[in-house]
Amino acid sequence: MHTFQETISLFEDYFEHNQPFPNEPVNLYDPCRYILEGGGKRIRPALCLMATELFKDEIPRDAYYVAMAIELFHNFTLIHDDIMDKAPLRRGRETVHHKYGLASGILSGDVMNIFSYKLLGMIQPAYLPEILNLVNTTAIEVCEGQQWDMDFENSDKVTIPEYLKMIALKTSVLLAGALKAGAILADASAEDANHLYDFGKNLGIAFQLQDDYLDTFGDGERTGKKPGGDIRSNKKTYLALKAREIANTKVLSALDECLLLEEETKVKETTKIFKELNIDNITKDIINHYFELSLKNLSSINIAKEKKAQLLSLANFLLTRDH
Amino acid sequence: MHTFQETISLFEDYFEHNQPFPNEPVNLYDPCRYILEGGGKRIRPALCLMATELFKDEIPRDAYYVAMAIELFHNFTLIHDDIMDKAPLRRGRETVHHKYGLASGILSGDVMNIFSYKLLGMIQPAYLPEILNLVNTTAIEVCEGQQWDMDFENSDKVTIPEYLKMIALKTSVLLAGALKAGAILADASAEDANHLYDFGKNLGIAFQLQDDYLDTFGDGERTGKKPGGDIRSNKKTYLALKAREIANTKVLSALDECLLLEEETKVKETTKIFKELNIDNITKDIINHYFELSLKNLSSINIAKEKKAQLLSLANFLLTRDH
Repeated sequence: MHTFQETISLFEDYFEHNQPFPNEPVNLYDPCRYILEGGGKRIRPALCLMATELFKDEIPRDAYYVAMAIELFHNFTLIHDDIMDKAPLRRGRETVHHKYGLASGILSGDVMNIFSYKLLGMIQPAYLPEILNLVNTTAIEVCEGQQWDMDFENSDKVTIPEYLKMIALKTSVLLAGALKAGAILADASAEDANHLYDFGKNLGIAFQLQDDYLDTFGDGERTGKKPGGDIRSNKKTYLALKAREIANTKVLSALDECLLLEEETKVKETTKIFKELNIDNITKDIINHYFELSLKNLSSINIAKEKKAQLLSLANFLLTRDH
Repeated sequence: MHTFQETISLFEDYFEHNQPFPNEPVNLYDPCRYILEGGGKRIRPALCLMATELFKDEIPRDAYYVAMAIELFHNFTLIHDDIMDKAPLRRGRETVHHKYGLASGILSGDVMNIFSYKLLGMIQPAYLPEILNLVNTTAIEVCEGQQWDMDFENSDKVTIPEYLKMIALKTSVLLAGALKAGAILADASAEDANHLYDFGKNLGIAFQLQDDYLDTFGDGERTGKKPGGDIRSNKKTYLALKAREIANTKVLSALDECLLLEEETKVKETTKIFKELNIDNITKDIINHYFELSLKNLSSINIAKEKKAQLLSLANFLLTRDH
């Protein structure tokens, strides 16, 4: 079995030799090539390929098609999300719509989405209905997650279950779907495929919550980011929602007052209140809760324990990061 | 066999009882419902259903799924095209992004596209690979057509073959694909399915060229539109491109001078030059050329002549319209 890093290299190599887009119209396909060359981490396609190795000695060719389809889908959502979020930069480079204009951002995203379905059309017919339905369900959930995220920005009544559902839809289901697709293509049982899906979903939620945690409580020197970005932009993270949930009237007022402070003082004062409310430890606990769930899902898969070593070490690597 | 109008009613009835979208998130799905309720003509889904009746007595259930998928795809492109074209109105109502905002326009278009694939996932597996590939190829061509259309706006060197290719991609291939999908689902031979595709493609090109013709030479009282909209907006239609192709240096200068005139005079003077160049008759000839091609395609289909009556009458109806 390949390690995560080895699998990423396998995918990168395949990807380099199997460019999906024609040359023309250049104004349509150059933006597609641009974002794909922007050096994403290729986590999703790697998960898809790794999942097959739990059940098969060789990675099936179809898994490369589906891995590529998922990577295209993911990048299509990044292009469109960046437009919706008015983001000028992504991975240190200009976003597609900033570089090529709004119309190109919309249209090249659209065609990338369709190319991901074109790749699905290349797999063996026997697998197609199940894979297509999995991708469709997942893709719809990702759109719904993005919508909830935008809705929450304008809402004062977001609950923690709603927030957890949103992050699951927006980020976890695609990780989960990538793993499940690999399992299906490697002829895993439906039960095992679902355990793997749940593993990815719970791990994804833990990972996203850890992102929230590190944004406020991370060591800036290790994360490379100035802490407090979420507080600065008044983002409704798990931390903020939990704080408001458990705060008494007096502390709620204090949190409200923080919103009016100058940026650096706001970060400092809000973080102080979070700590007084024990939000750091509460968040660590819920991260751990989802991490444990994911490990349980992994252990439920009915294959030899050694085979799970690579996914287990990936999970540990992702969740013990401090950056 | 049902007439075109009857088939539209069949589809409308099916559509009314099989709404594809869930209620929530409302901000995602309300825009989808809004554009679908905006009263499109349902030409594409009707063509898909009609095509099946050439080869089967009963319209197969799968054809309804695919017809609906094509209608969703078409409406998704309308939402996104309206953003790219900065259009405030469509079918006399506010466009989606004007009513719901840019982010909603992008995201609801995206999810509609994915729902069209979800519908494809519902057809019998035996038909799925071929239908999926047809839809993907067509969808990619539609995006490419839209890109060429945008590219041509900023180009001074558009040739007539390029223009014809663009209108074929942007509008005809979806009509052709709808017909071919119906043929496939009704077990037509590959040859007949392709004849039907070509019929739709050539008819679509004729129809689009007629749109160009009527915009300048149509009777405003019958079309309900003030003639000359394309001239007013300096659109590179077949008429404009042909005029520049055959004009001598002196007439070219006259056409250039028209661009500087006040709107109404510009329409009047440009139309006068078009007539002097015989552009009205040249355009009628090429419309007729594509119309004749489409009739030839229809006659090549290896079924009883009576069965083709409804499509023939539809073609005649579309191409003898003066509005």
